[in-house]
Amino acid sequence: MVGEGNVRSHPAELISFGRDATPLHEGSADVVALPGSTAEVAAVVQVANRRGLALIPRGAGTNLAAATVPIGGGIVMSLTRMDQVLEVNRGEMLAVVQPGVTTAELGRAADRVGLFYPPDPGSRETCTIGGNIATNAGGLRGLKYGVTRDYVLGLELVLASGETIRTGGRLIKDVAGYDLTRLIVGSEGTLGVVTEATLALRPRPEASTTGVAYFAELAHAAAAVDAILAFGVLPATLEFLDDVCIGVVEDYAGLGLRRDAGALLLFGDDGTEASARLCVEQMAEICRAGGALEITTASQIAEAEDLLAARRCTLPALARVAPITILEDVAVPRPRLVEMVEAVAEITEKLGLACGTFGHAGDGNLHPTLLLERDDKRARQAAEQAVARIFAKAIELGGTISGEHGIGLTKKPYLVDQLGADHLALLQRVKTAFDPAGILNPAKLGS
Amino acid sequence: MVGEGNVRSHPAELISFGRDATPLHEGSADVVALPGSTAEVAAVVQVANRRGLALIPRGAGTNLAAATVPIGGGIVMSLTRMDQVLEVNRGEMLAVVQPGVTTAELGRAADRVGLFYPPDPGSRETCTIGGNIATNAGGLRGLKYGVTRDYVLGLELVLASGETIRTGGRLIKDVAGYDLTRLIVGSEGTLGVVTEATLALRPRPEASTTGVAYFAELAHAAAAVDAILAFGVLPATLEFLDDVCIGVVEDYAGLGLRRDAGALLLFGDDGTEASARLCVEQMAEICRAGGALEITTASQIAEAEDLLAARRCTLPALARVAPITILEDVAVPRPRLVEMVEAVAEITEKLGLACGTFGHAGDGNLHPTLLLERDDKRARQAAEQAVARIFAKAIELGGTISGEHGIGLTKKPYLVDQLGADHLALLQRVKTAFDPAGILNPAKLGS
Repeated sequence: MVGEGNVRSHPAELISFGRDATPLHEGSADVVALPGSTAEVAAVVQVANRRGLALIPRGAGTNLAAATVPIGGGIVMSLTRMDQVLEVNRGEMLAVVQPGVTTAELGRAADRVGLFYPPDPGSRETCTIGGNIATNAGGLRGLKYGVTRDYVLGLELVLASGETIRTGGRLIKDVAGYDLTRLIVGSEGTLGVVTEATLALRPRPEASTTGVAYFAELAHAAAAVDAILAFGVLPATLEFLDDVCIGVVEDYAGLGLRRDAGALLLFGDDGTEASARLCVEQMAEICRAGGALEITTASQIAEAEDLLAARRCTLPALARVAPITILEDVAVPRPRLVEMVEAVAEITEKLGLACGTFGHAGDGNLHPTLLLERDDKRARQAAEQAVARIFAKAIELGGTISGEHGIGLTKKPYLVDQLGADHLALLQRVKTAFDPAGILNPAKLGS
Repeated sequence: MVGEGNVRSHPAELISFGRDATPLHEGSADVVALPGSTAEVAAVVQVANRRGLALIPRGAGTNLAAATVPIGGGIVMSLTRMDQVLEVNRGEMLAVVQPGVTTAELGRAADRVGLFYPPDPGSRETCTIGGNIATNAGGLRGLKYGVTRDYVLGLELVLASGETIRTGGRLIKDVAGYDLTRLIVGSEGTLGVVTEATLALRPRPEASTTGVAYFAELAHAAAAVDAILAFGVLPATLEFLDDVCIGVVEDYAGLGLRRDAGALLLFGDDGTEASARLCVEQMAEICRAGGALEITTASQIAEAEDLLAARRCTLPALARVAPITILEDVAVPRPRLVEMVEAVAEITEKLGLACGTFGHAGDGNLHPTLLLERDDKRARQAAEQAVARIFAKAIELGGTISGEHGIGLTKKPYLVDQLGADHLALLQRVKTAFDPAGILNPAKLGS
C-alpha cells in the first residue's frame, strides 16, 4: 500500500521506531509504514481498522512523554515522507503543509515571503508540524503569541474508520459545527491521523531585541517578571535558567555567562525597531530596579540570537553532564512560579537527585530536569518518586502536569489527579466517538 | 430547586422565552428556570436527564440563528441571574466570570485595572459571556485579536448527566487531556451548560485610532484592504459598508456620511500612541493610492468612537427601514470577498429582494441583510431561496455558512453541504459522548 521501499521490518529498525526522545521507555513496532500520500495513509488505516491492529502515528519522534512509543506493538506510521510545504500565501497570511514538514522549515518558508510562524518548540529544527499539532507544542513565545493551537486554521484528517474529513479551512472566523480542529490539536495521535494542515501566519516583525539579567536569587528574577507584566507590556520572550543550568550551559557553550548568579532571566521583544527597543529598555530598567546583578541587552538580531542560544542549548548542556536526563514539564499560575521551583529543589534534594530547572517564566511553564548518574533501580525509583511529588505540587498550586509536552505514557497515571474521574470518563467517551475499536495509539490519551 | 421566584410559567413569559433575536422563528417553553448557582443548574439538569426532558440553556437571547429557540418545548434555562464578575487579576491577566455577565460589563471590569478584553460582538452591551462562548462570538477586532475561543482559558461545565467538571484553568499552556475547553466554545449549548469561565485579558492598548475612506466601488475598497495587509500591517479594524448601508446609516444617525460613495471602509488600530497613528497613516495612504474619494482620520478616542458608531449602528439602521431584517453571516477567504458581495447583490436582485451588505473586510466575514417589506409567503420563500444560494456560493468560494453567529436551527439543513456526511456523523457521535439522551438543546448542532 505504501510501496515496497517504504516499509521497515528489520529488527534494528523496529527497535529504533520503538522509541522516541523519552528516556527509559521503549516498545517495539511489528512493522513500520512510511506513507507518501493521504490515500496511502487511509489505505493503511483501513486495514488496521479491519484487522483490529494498533496503529501509532509519529513524526520525528522528539516526544518527551513516550506518546509515540508502541508499547503493545502494532503498526508504527511515520509521516516524515509527507514533508511538502504545499502553499505559502502572503495575501491570506497562511500556509498549507504536509505533516512531515519541520517547524523550522515552515518558519523559513514563511520568512521568504515576509511572514512569520510564531510557535518555536526547542526541537524546531527536527520536530514536525504533525507532531507539533499532536502535542499542541509551545515554545519560547507563548506569552505574546500563544501556542500551536492558536495557528491551526484547518486540518485534513484520516479517521480510524479510514474515512478522510476536513475540519476548519482558511478562515479566522468559522463556526460551522463543533470545533474539531482544536480538539485534534493536542490529541496525541489518538483521534485521527493528520495528513494536511492549514496554518495561520503573521507579518514578520521588523525587528527583534533581547536582553539578559542576572539575579542573586530566582525569587528576585520572578519578582522582576511580575513587575514587567504589571507594567503593562506583553513581551515575546521571558525565560529563566537556575544556577545549575547556568553552570552547565557555560561549561557547554562558553558564552561568558556569570557563574555566581542564582538565576538568569532572558527577556526580549519584537515589533517595529522602536517598539522592540523601547520594550527591552523598559524591561532592563525594571530588572535594574529589581536588584539585578548585571544586565546586557543586544540590539542586533545576531547578538540577540547569541543570547537566545544560552536558553536553547540548556537541554543538550544538561544532557552532557548525566547519562540520563528526565525533562519534566509542569506549569503553574505565574505568581506561584517561585513556590514551584523551590518545591522542586526541596523534593529532588530530599531524594538525593541532581536537578536543573529552566523554563518559560512568562507563562509559568517550567522544565525541572532530573540528572541521573546511571540507570539503576534506586535512581529510577527516586526519579519516579520525585516526578510524582512534583506533579502533586503543580496540581496543588492550580497548575498542570503538562504545559507543552503532552501526557503520553509517562503522565497517564497522574492525569486523573488533575482532571478527576468524571472528566477522564468523558475523555474516554470522546475517544470512542472517534475510534470505537481503539486502534489509534492505544494505551495513551483517552484509553 | 431554583426558588419559587425564579421560575416563569405565565403564557406571555413562555412566549417571550420561546424566541431569540432571529426573525420568523419561534418555539414555546414549557417552563423557564433561572438558576442562581452551579448547584442549582446541576439540580435542574439532573431532573431533566432523569425525566428525559429537553433543556435549552440561554443567555440574553441575542442569537441570530435561532440557536436558543425551544422548538420542541422543554425547560428553558436562562443563566442571566448568574451575572457576577468573580475576579479580575491584573498580575495573571485574566478574569473569572459567571455566564450571565455581559461582554461590555467584562470589558469595563478589565478596563478598571488597565486590562482589555478584545472580543466585541455587535450586541456587546446586551449579550452575555455564556452566549459568546456558546457561539464563539467574534466582532470587529477578529483580524488582529482573534475571537472568543482565543480568550477562554478554562470552564466550569455541568454535563447532561448533572456531573460538574472543570476544563483548562488559569494557564496559557496546559495540554493535560483533550482540549474540551475549545470544543465547548461554539457548541451552542448542546454539550453542557457553562457555569463559570476563566478568560484571558491583555494589557490595555495605550491609544486607539480610526479612519474612514470612501470608494466609488466596493471592489476598490477590497483592493485597498488587500494592499494594506500585503503591506505587512495587521490592524485592529477593517470594516466595510456597501452603498445601501451607507444610506440607511446616514438617514438613521446623520453622521455626515457621503451618500454618493459605493463603499465605506473603516480602518483602525491600537497600540502605543505612535504605532497606532503610524499604522492608520499608512492605511490612509494606501487608500489614497487606491483611489479613495475621500479620507477622514480621527486621533482622539472620542472621534474614533464616532466613526466606529457608523459601523455599530448599521443593523439598527437597516432594521428601521424594513419590518423584517434577515441578517446573514457568511465568511470567505479575503481575496474572494468582492466576488461574494457581487454574488449576493445578483442573487437578491434576481429574487426582487432589497439587501444591504456590511461586515469585517479584514477576515472576509460579511453580513448580507435581507430587507423584507412584510412577512408574506412570497417574501419568505424568496428570502429562503436567496439564503440557500448565498450559502452555496460561500461554500463554492471555500468559505463558511457561518462566520460568527452559529448554526442553530436556521442553518442546520445546510451544514452537510459544507462539512459532508462523514464529518456530520462524527459530530453526532461527539454529541452522544456528551449527551447520550440528547436532552441538551435538542434538534440543534450534533443532533
